Amino acid sequence: MAKKSYPLPRVYGLLEPGPVVLLTTAGAGKCNVMPMSWHSMLEFEPPRLGCVVSDRNHSYGLLASSGECVINIPTVDIAGKVVSCGNTSGLKTDKFREFGLTPRPAEDVRAPLIEECYASLECRVADTSMVATYAFFVLQVMKAWMDPAIKHPRTIHHRGRGTFMVAGETIRLRSKMK
Amino acid sequence: MAKKSYPLPRVYGLLEPGPVVLLTTAGAGKCNVMPMSWHSMLEFEPPRLGCVVSDRNHSYGLLASSGECVINIPTVDIAGKVVSCGNTSGLKTDKFREFGLTPRPAEDVRAPLIEECYASLECRVADTSMVATYAFFVLQVMKAWMDPAIKHPRTIHHRGRGTFMVAGETIRLRSKMK
Repeated sequence: MAKKSYPLPRVYGLLEPGPVVLLTTAGAGKCNVMPMSWHSMLEFEPPRLGCVVSDRNHSYGLLASSGECVINIPTVDIAGKVVSCGNTSGLKTDKFREFGLTPRPAEDVRAPLIEECYASLECRVADTSMVATYAFFVLQVMKAWMDPAIKHPRTIHHRGRGTFMVAGETIRLRSKMK
Repeated sequence: MAKKSYPLPRVYGLLEPGPVVLLTTAGAGKCNVMPMSWHSMLEFEPPRLGCVVSDRNHSYGLLASSGECVINIPTVDIAGKVVSCGNTSGLKTDKFREFGLTPRPAEDVRAPLIEECYASLECRVADTSMVATYAFFVLQVMKAWMDPAIKHPRTIHHRGRGTFMVAGETIRLRSKMK
């Protein structure tokens, strides 16, 4: 993917439609990746979002201790790899190697970008006050990357129990909203 | 829509794909409706979600004072009405009448279900600790309704500035996740 720097005030449009994302984290010379669907934008600018990373996930410890992650947005062409990442624990498996995902260095954080994803958001943990109750981390997007060739990304959206909706047609309506 | 009661443990599958929803609220003999995309599941069971309702919205006061709302999920056939609701303030306009949406009594809350939406979730505010900082309300779903005839709902997903992705094909993958 030929990802280029993407303006921070437009990041909400990548996450607001609710795609499954791949969260990457790093720590102690290792990195990990997990799929995640429980996320919401919280602020436009600086872009902040909240997401649930359960303490049953190996990524929880890496995210909590490093305070950094990357949110990578996959499309349907790697849906099989996304689900494989969710079926496996990073405690025992190097998921990048096992499932053929390519880590690339980020600019602002130690967690890697995933080459095969059309967009990647470098994030820092900004607020942990909801972690104890809901495992809900508030993240601030520090740097965003997007492949401008992908005009209508065929993102995947989890409907539960292995069923995914794939992004369909795009429509335009006269909205006064951002 | 012939909505029937829907099991609470399966509610996450309705919200996790990130659809634009219509939030209804009630208070002082009036009700209001606003579109919203900033929401995330927080817990499977009892189903809890978080959502951002800005204090610039007329719905904020109704939600905060009543502690109740309904989250209604529209499909593309009423996308024009959804956007019209977002372009208008409930302070001056009865949006139900103005845009031809039909309020129906809910069972557990005073806010109405919207007849034209294929699913409706009756919610109570469960936690306001993130409201001051992020206008983020934690809601618990008390009762859920869904039209079982709608197998592949053509939900709409906001990509920003009047652009919406419409739910496309459904795929199945061998996921071990819920």
